[in-house]
Amino acid sequence: METPYTLWSRDELRRPGSPPRYTGEQTKEIAFPLGGIGTGCVSLTGMGGLRDWEIFNRPNKGSVMPYTFAALWVRQGGHEPITRVVQGPAQPPYSGQGVSSYQGFGFGVERMNGSGLPPMRSVAFGGAFPIAEVVFSDPGLPVQVTLEAYSPFIPLNPDDSGLPIAVLNYRVHNQTDAPLEVALAFSLFNPLGYPGKGAFTGAHLGQNRNAYHDDGLVRGLAMSTGKVAPDDPAYGTMALMTTWTETFHQCCWLRGGWFDALHDFWDHFSREGSVPARELGPTDEGASDVGTLGLRAMIQPGEVVTLPILLAWHFPTFQKYWGGSAGCDGCGCERSRWRNYYASQWEDATEVAHYYAANQERLYGGTRAFAETLLESTLPDHVLDALSSQASILHSPTVLRLEDGTFYGFEGCHGDAGCCEGSCTHVWNYAQTVAYLFPSLERSLREADYFYNQRPDGHMAFRLQLPLGSPMWDFHAAADGQLGGILKVYRDWRLCGDDAWLRRLWPKVVKALEYAWEQWDPDRDGVITGVQHNTYDIEFVGPNTMIGSFYLGALRAAECMATHLGDTERAALYREVYERGRQATEELFNGEYYVQQCPDDPALKYQYGEGCLSDQLIGQWFAHLVGLGHILDPDHVRSAMQAIFHHNWRTDFWDHANPQRIYALNDEQGLLLCSWPRGNRPRFPFVYSDEVWCGIEYQVASHLIYEGFVDEGLAVVKGIRARHDGRRRNPWNEFECGSHYARSLASWSVLLALSGVEVDAPNLRVSFAPKLEADPFGCFWSSASGWGSYRQSGEGWAEIRVEQGNLTLGTLGLGRLRGDSARAVLDGVAVSAQIRPMDQGCEIGIEPEIVINAGQVLRVTLAS
Amino acid sequence: METPYTLWSRDELRRPGSPPRYTGEQTKEIAFPLGGIGTGCVSLTGMGGLRDWEIFNRPNKGSVMPYTFAALWVRQGGHEPITRVVQGPAQPPYSGQGVSSYQGFGFGVERMNGSGLPPMRSVAFGGAFPIAEVVFSDPGLPVQVTLEAYSPFIPLNPDDSGLPIAVLNYRVHNQTDAPLEVALAFSLFNPLGYPGKGAFTGAHLGQNRNAYHDDGLVRGLAMSTGKVAPDDPAYGTMALMTTWTETFHQCCWLRGGWFDALHDFWDHFSREGSVPARELGPTDEGASDVGTLGLRAMIQPGEVVTLPILLAWHFPTFQKYWGGSAGCDGCGCERSRWRNYYASQWEDATEVAHYYAANQERLYGGTRAFAETLLESTLPDHVLDALSSQASILHSPTVLRLEDGTFYGFEGCHGDAGCCEGSCTHVWNYAQTVAYLFPSLERSLREADYFYNQRPDGHMAFRLQLPLGSPMWDFHAAADGQLGGILKVYRDWRLCGDDAWLRRLWPKVVKALEYAWEQWDPDRDGVITGVQHNTYDIEFVGPNTMIGSFYLGALRAAECMATHLGDTERAALYREVYERGRQATEELFNGEYYVQQCPDDPALKYQYGEGCLSDQLIGQWFAHLVGLGHILDPDHVRSAMQAIFHHNWRTDFWDHANPQRIYALNDEQGLLLCSWPRGNRPRFPFVYSDEVWCGIEYQVASHLIYEGFVDEGLAVVKGIRARHDGRRRNPWNEFECGSHYARSLASWSVLLALSGVEVDAPNLRVSFAPKLEADPFGCFWSSASGWGSYRQSGEGWAEIRVEQGNLTLGTLGLGRLRGDSARAVLDGVAVSAQIRPMDQGCEIGIEPEIVINAGQVLRVTLAS
Repeated sequence: METPYTLWSRDELRRPGSPPRYTGEQTKEIAFPLGGIGTGCVSLTGMGGLRDWEIFNRPNKGSVMPYTFAALWVRQGGHEPITRVVQGPAQPPYSGQGVSSYQGFGFGVERMNGSGLPPMRSVAFGGAFPIAEVVFSDPGLPVQVTLEAYSPFIPLNPDDSGLPIAVLNYRVHNQTDAPLEVALAFSLFNPLGYPGKGAFTGAHLGQNRNAYHDDGLVRGLAMSTGKVAPDDPAYGTMALMTTWTETFHQCCWLRGGWFDALHDFWDHFSREGSVPARELGPTDEGASDVGTLGLRAMIQPGEVVTLPILLAWHFPTFQKYWGGSAGCDGCGCERSRWRNYYASQWEDATEVAHYYAANQERLYGGTRAFAETLLESTLPDHVLDALSSQASILHSPTVLRLEDGTFYGFEGCHGDAGCCEGSCTHVWNYAQTVAYLFPSLERSLREADYFYNQRPDGHMAFRLQLPLGSPMWDFHAAADGQLGGILKVYRDWRLCGDDAWLRRLWPKVVKALEYAWEQWDPDRDGVITGVQHNTYDIEFVGPNTMIGSFYLGALRAAECMATHLGDTERAALYREVYERGRQATEELFNGEYYVQQCPDDPALKYQYGEGCLSDQLIGQWFAHLVGLGHILDPDHVRSAMQAIFHHNWRTDFWDHANPQRIYALNDEQGLLLCSWPRGNRPRFPFVYSDEVWCGIEYQVASHLIYEGFVDEGLAVVKGIRARHDGRRRNPWNEFECGSHYARSLASWSVLLALSGVEVDAPNLRVSFAPKLEADPFGCFWSSASGWGSYRQSGEGWAEIRVEQGNLTLGTLGLGRLRGDSARAVLDGVAVSAQIRPMDQGCEIGIEPEIVINAGQVLRVTLAS
Repeated sequence: METPYTLWSRDELRRPGSPPRYTGEQTKEIAFPLGGIGTGCVSLTGMGGLRDWEIFNRPNKGSVMPYTFAALWVRQGGHEPITRVVQGPAQPPYSGQGVSSYQGFGFGVERMNGSGLPPMRSVAFGGAFPIAEVVFSDPGLPVQVTLEAYSPFIPLNPDDSGLPIAVLNYRVHNQTDAPLEVALAFSLFNPLGYPGKGAFTGAHLGQNRNAYHDDGLVRGLAMSTGKVAPDDPAYGTMALMTTWTETFHQCCWLRGGWFDALHDFWDHFSREGSVPARELGPTDEGASDVGTLGLRAMIQPGEVVTLPILLAWHFPTFQKYWGGSAGCDGCGCERSRWRNYYASQWEDATEVAHYYAANQERLYGGTRAFAETLLESTLPDHVLDALSSQASILHSPTVLRLEDGTFYGFEGCHGDAGCCEGSCTHVWNYAQTVAYLFPSLERSLREADYFYNQRPDGHMAFRLQLPLGSPMWDFHAAADGQLGGILKVYRDWRLCGDDAWLRRLWPKVVKALEYAWEQWDPDRDGVITGVQHNTYDIEFVGPNTMIGSFYLGALRAAECMATHLGDTERAALYREVYERGRQATEELFNGEYYVQQCPDDPALKYQYGEGCLSDQLIGQWFAHLVGLGHILDPDHVRSAMQAIFHHNWRTDFWDHANPQRIYALNDEQGLLLCSWPRGNRPRFPFVYSDEVWCGIEYQVASHLIYEGFVDEGLAVVKGIRARHDGRRRNPWNEFECGSHYARSLASWSVLLALSGVEVDAPNLRVSFAPKLEADPFGCFWSSASGWGSYRQSGEGWAEIRVEQGNLTLGTLGLGRLRGDSARAVLDGVAVSAQIRPMDQGCEIGIEPEIVINAGQVLRVTLAS
């Protein structure tokens, strides 16, 4: 078996650490999303500027808003002032990009972001989602400048994590022994009326107005439009605010031809460290203004000041720009519209900025607590990187929140549109982050699925149509999505323990399983047959374990739920079918891995047959996630997982012939979707078979770890993240069929596997079973009621800390730890604890159960 | 004065050498145009593939034609065969580019060019326009593969240099000691019906047909369309041919869904080294086929075979896709159309390929002779690079040949359209390459200017409207264009010595000058006044030497032509105005350089006033080019040229604030258009003042060299070429307002300055005055009748060789050489020669004049 050590040492795979800092060429592809859940975002570039204005209710890759950048002016005593755009230098190529008139390729470097003005000499881009930190270096400057950029992101608090705001804290450190006068000028174009994609200038502009606002808490420019009606999807407001009190502003840059406006701004600011006040009223038809907000400070020797910029937006009306509305072909008739959930929280962008400022301590504190709790883990750097970076999908335009707060996801993003609508059940099967960080949002996905997307016969339309209540999509059910949904209900109920919620969904779950029987297991022998549409956008035909393992997992999950709800008859039936299926499914094991039993029809395309499919045990992976253990022969499962790594993992792709889409190539590492180690590759195997998908890699990595192949799993994760090194691809954008692809939210399952965490809320039980030797081992945990950190040591102790929310605990499972007696202390007070030995480690019974509140730690000490 | 030596040593600036080879990152931006003059082109990428399909009568940057690439299969004895796409590996970023549905950013590496299939491990891209050479390396291959790619380009032969063909010679070298079986498969998509921009697939396709053709000389695939009518601008043919006799072919790839076609091709070819014959007839509506032509060979140990691919195209009808036709707003009415000149030479693409094959020796030989003659010079590598690389503009979509053969130029290219129509007289003022390599084409530009673009009052509309004979453009005359035209007539007549031609144009030239008097010198004091529209797209007001030096040069040129034509009255008048002007103009000299006398009007924008303008002596430069010597005080001129270098040359741009377009930045070198070393920069100086334009840099570099500041001039050239290093920008695309910008054809003037060549055909005189110490010094020369090489040595000899055409010589000027007697020998036969000492060097009188024919050398030996 080819091991990861041919490429990386065990130490490189396992060493705890922090996510990478990016410098030089590695900053080129960086775009770090700033915005809330369901608000769209604007991205911080590797230079430290802003790009990809996806705040207008749709993706908008590559967009650069005119003249929107920060500049810093510094003067020391009698010296000449020095002025810099607070961005690193533009990087090659310098020819310009894209096809357009008088810009793009053949017209030179993009100038609208300030690239022609003196930049900082270099940048180092660090931090981890949700907080980015850009360190600027310039030998000519007497100050060191660092930008901390973030938007609130606090587990279990989706509303505060859904603020349409980007917070930019510029920290300026006086490195001289004399006081310095500094001014930070942040300029922003008023784009209101913008249709969401295409050029920022044009006929959509006019009657744009930038007005000065000061409510005592925040001050700056309030941007509005008089041209667009409030119910128009292009309507909205923006705000460029600060809580800093020493300010200056210019509502409107010079209105002139050619390059006059930027010329005038720079000449004034670089000379005087200020720009004269100018307010000209609404703009002419087709025109808009840039406005500048300036922050002034004297900085004493050695002192650091933090100059905060708040960039808020508010585009209340979402228009469904894809597909058709019911009875409409999208042309000449009204498209469906609804209000963004966030628009029900705040009236306009200025109110958003005010809310942020009023709650800054909580919002910043909660966000930083999450970031620090996650990073304090003893997990390897590349794993932490995978966890945190992919959580950024929640701040990307891949996700929406509908008017009632329901969470909705595309699969990913086209350049200027969502890519593949409808919270697609099979792609979102892989995603775990939302369930663990924002479980109420994940439950809203379940509710939407079962209440809006299931036909009376149980057929789940796997793409939810908007607005909610629209006619369902008329297509096959997706076998993986239909069956995965049952496992997801089980997971979400276990995390929250809300029986009422489960009871509401239960009849729908029963229907879903009955539909599966009708379609794919009419004889209820537990073996999947028939035509199975799935996440590869084709139909598998005949028994296979990709769908089959989902089926067995779903049967087991349904059995557990039925038992809990007292539906013993159904529980027994599900168990019976499962048992039959488990045995029959083993016939697909070829001695090394599980294959597909394909009908012998040469006209049948797009199967995998005797191939070694990376997803062949996805249902087993999910079963581990939800504590169902092995649903197939453990030895076979382990053999198959080894086979997947052995046959599908590539340490390079030089000799790999891939006529399909290219997500890994040349000298990169990655896991193929499939291979045919024993020959008999079909003439036309399933259509993505030669590709590499991050989401499947995370699924397999997590599962490898569950099965004990820790280094193999870590190698897969390291390979993914090495492909997203800032030069090859954006670390904060793992794409598949489009950017910010939801399948990568499977990365959270690597944390679950490495920590072995299980939250069984109905039974007040939480357990850990770390797979790494670090001592003490530390990790992040979360349930639907609270989150925090966990640590345990081979010296015989464990600590569970609640950072926010609370945790009601009756049993604490401690993998890898043993003892004869246990002492449990909650914030200095002993609690009653009984130790019970388990197969691996032990379990601490706490009776009566305790509630650990925010800031409290439960410490358990074992003695032999 | 800041000298270039702070950056580059004198040796680095002057050392003879060859243009660079590009490897690694430096291949990323490379796109080397293949095509003829006025045929459009397709570009060879730094990977060795094809991109930018600009053969469809308009630019088309970034376009990738589906599945169009070469693959090589190699088998040694009983070994497994090895197959490679004959391209280097795709380079980062790997996210995909551009905004599109299911492709572009967020969808991974472009796959249509074969990037997902095993590539060659690395490439080195070398050669010099017109012949590129790509060396592929792959440790896994038993052969070394080199691609020589070119299109015929032979000075003085515009028709043979105007073939719509790309020739790709794949040289395969067996590096083993056993015979090897190889197969080269070149695949090409049939795009016929393509509208010239946008996606290659779509509704424009249908009834596309690939048919096998073998006429004994060439064989391969003839591509046609049955859907598009022959007079439609989208109509055309393509041909994928070879002169190789051992071939196989597949007219149509598998017609299947998803990725079936490429899958099928690769599976067959990589297994068998062949693809089965398949011809399916015309395609369905909306569909087209890829076809493959294969070449087979057995290669003996150590042997090299050259496998030639001829890719020809024929799109006869040019439709004016910009602006309006007369009386038409471009919508709902017919746009003007005409036939490309090349379409009058050949019936279709197959005939082009046949013509090439039938004349291959002459076409290849002439092209290689040009390349070798140019490169055999002792000029520095970066100068040769500037000369050859920018000649590629003639094979780019910047130039057209109209139905009657008239040469026409845009300024440059938008991504998918010409950028700024009409052989713009002021931009093309700078261009020198065409005049020296294809003088008949340059004269056709003059004829179009004076016969189609001059109003009765002498006003030259500076943008020629198409089709010829259309109403003239209604705008200011451009002062620089109007006056430069007179110098260009003088230059072109001197190069050809055709008095009849001069006489035809002379009345028009007189009119042009009279119009200039009326507009800009009503009192004929020789000083430019009034409103002067110019190449900066604004109007200068008041006396200045940018327009003024053009004026003085034009007066002198007109005087010379008048004298020659016996119009002594006019000659005297022109001289008189010139003399007055020369003296008065010196009042603009500020002791260091020449300034503009600006009216004192604060509302007047976009002037340069006291600035040091790089173009301030452009007319003096042109006067040197055409042998008029100094038209202003030589000391002042030299001081001003030093000032330009001193004030405007930048060894980096870190502190340069440029609110305009960005053509040089960060750590690059370049020459600003203007600076204000003495302060008083206008609040809004002329709009491009902070920019860096290659064409102006070449003009200044050449002029610096003429004035004796050789290292400074060479530094400017080296700076330009360092900015086009294959990583920052494409070496074969110096852009300004668009790609392949015509102003860069000023690069040829660097050769003229360094060699000091002057061709005075009316007086049968050719002279050289090298500015470099290389001994022997060698350079390329050309006149309107012939071209070849020149060498001279300080040891007292000189040789002029005619490579093609002939040269009638009465006097040979030898700069830097001295002697008391001279002996001249033409191909071993002594000719009568008299030596006459001159200011710098000497002159050899040959009486009677001789004709040096192709292949002959005249050698002159001096003795003291």
